[in-house]
Amino acid sequence: MKLILIGFGVVGQGFAEILRDRGSELRRKHNFAAQIIGVVTASKGSLYQSSGLDPASLLQAAESGSFDNYPTQPGLRRGLTASDMIEAREADALVEASPSNLETAQPALEYCHLALDAGMHLTLANKGPVALDYANLQAKAREKGLQLRYEATVMAGTPTMHLAEAALAGCEIHSARGILNGTTNYILSQMETGKSYDEALAQAQELGYAETDPTGDVEGWDAAGKLLILGNALFASGHAMADLDVSGITAISAADIADAKAAGQRYKLIASATPAGGSVKATRLPLDDPLANVGGSTNAITLETDLMGHITLIGAGAGKLETGYAILSDLLAIKRATGLA
Amino acid sequence: MKLILIGFGVVGQGFAEILRDRGSELRRKHNFAAQIIGVVTASKGSLYQSSGLDPASLLQAAESGSFDNYPTQPGLRRGLTASDMIEAREADALVEASPSNLETAQPALEYCHLALDAGMHLTLANKGPVALDYANLQAKAREKGLQLRYEATVMAGTPTMHLAEAALAGCEIHSARGILNGTTNYILSQMETGKSYDEALAQAQELGYAETDPTGDVEGWDAAGKLLILGNALFASGHAMADLDVSGITAISAADIADAKAAGQRYKLIASATPAGGSVKATRLPLDDPLANVGGSTNAITLETDLMGHITLIGAGAGKLETGYAILSDLLAIKRATGLA
Repeated sequence: MKLILIGFGVVGQGFAEILRDRGSELRRKHNFAAQIIGVVTASKGSLYQSSGLDPASLLQAAESGSFDNYPTQPGLRRGLTASDMIEAREADALVEASPSNLETAQPALEYCHLALDAGMHLTLANKGPVALDYANLQAKAREKGLQLRYEATVMAGTPTMHLAEAALAGCEIHSARGILNGTTNYILSQMETGKSYDEALAQAQELGYAETDPTGDVEGWDAAGKLLILGNALFASGHAMADLDVSGITAISAADIADAKAAGQRYKLIASATPAGGSVKATRLPLDDPLANVGGSTNAITLETDLMGHITLIGAGAGKLETGYAILSDLLAIKRATGLA
Repeated sequence: MKLILIGFGVVGQGFAEILRDRGSELRRKHNFAAQIIGVVTASKGSLYQSSGLDPASLLQAAESGSFDNYPTQPGLRRGLTASDMIEAREADALVEASPSNLETAQPALEYCHLALDAGMHLTLANKGPVALDYANLQAKAREKGLQLRYEATVMAGTPTMHLAEAALAGCEIHSARGILNGTTNYILSQMETGKSYDEALAQAQELGYAETDPTGDVEGWDAAGKLLILGNALFASGHAMADLDVSGITAISAADIADAKAAGQRYKLIASATPAGGSVKATRLPLDDPLANVGGSTNAITLETDLMGHITLIGAGAGKLETGYAILSDLLAIKRATGLA
């Protein structure tokens, strides 16, 4: 399976590490031999080689800050754009792992359409395209018999989409409720130990869980983007951000946390979706709710189904290997569906 | 997909209800049109019809206590044995849903081998064959290109096996720890509210969660049977019951429960497996362990993986529709793998 990778940040590097360290195991155990033939980045340059780039050398060059330091060899081309690489029509799948843009989904969305038009399967870690243009992408993929996969966009490699799609096939899913943002969950967990919101946020920033501008996390937009994707995946709901009822955790005070605790409850930022709509809001949960006991930066989701009642999945929501694994698991699913190895 | 069903108790009836109530939806949404062509039971008789038995009539006849009350029609044959039906070689898959025998796995094990020899895929709700003879069954199935599936044997239809096999493909699983017996979990949950072991057991029996002779549950043997299956599925470990370290909850007193509570802990009957071995024992867990908060008759499992850290799945461990759904989900997996509809 020949791959073009757009973006080589945490996700792309995590995936390359897995190929570097597990390549022979994946060939042996799963008869799977993916090759990265192209990588495009905004800041490190781009590399293309039809016969396959070397994951270890890619990682070394990325660590040095530029793909200029990737060893030159016969057939290697530098400086191609994503469009150039897609138009070359040598790849079987496009891996979109550039940073998410939840306003326009561009430029990733354009590359996704180009890739489908060129007959490539699509795997996304970038939330934008599946949050904002799911229906069109899915329709095009179906029409062309191509796979559209996006496990990395929600709960990293914790197999949320695999669970809903294959493992619960035959069940009808009525609703989904989850803790989809690790940063806010970490902050709320820290506030339970007595810290103020500001102290907990500062600690999250220090540990790299929260960005310098934490707005996207603490005001609920990151969780809302994931919720749009879940709504599309589970209910083909086609909602836009404006259709969701979104608030974050910025209004939650130490006194609120203490109040909840005294009542045997716990605040969690809960993202919930039904076919009719969705919301992201800080919610007091009783302690016997499986979501109430998900601490730190862990993520979790509860699916309410017709035949199986409630099914809860708890796992990592971020991390280099964890998101890199999400890409691998999507590619293995493409392999199962298509036979491409 | 033509099916022979051995056993028509809770699991078989749950599955028949799903076919009766969801048949047209399964055809429409999943292009799946399974037909039960044979049913064999120990106490209600047996029915066989190459063109397919009617699920609604099967359920009515079962409710009356005997398949004698299934309406006679051209081509219907009564009184065939399981071997007769398998030898007729008209079915695509055998569904083994008769009661588990964890000593010899018979007579189910013989039927399983006969079915594989006859080229049929195999789906089990009966724990015996996969607990005691997994290696031989799996080897035979692989050799013949047949599917061996057994989602119903552990955590009912909660997709444990699907999670480990497909959703976490590419991860290495190092260990599994779970609450695999709902009866004992219910009893322990009740004891936390202040009841004695005897009171809690009596209540579980009243509600139908525990049998009149509760030995298999409360001494840990039911969980141990499931653990053998998990060990086989995850690690091909091939252990026998005698290799496991099994104890139950009978020695846990109200004072033990109170002690744990005072220490911020909770007793759970934890079944755990690694490639090297396994145990079933009442264990004090800290409250921030996801398994500590699984109450009542719910089941749960935590898989420790290399790439994804800990992944926890929580869901029903029993129930008519839930175990019936497990059969359906296995058959849908067979459909995905083989194209049989």
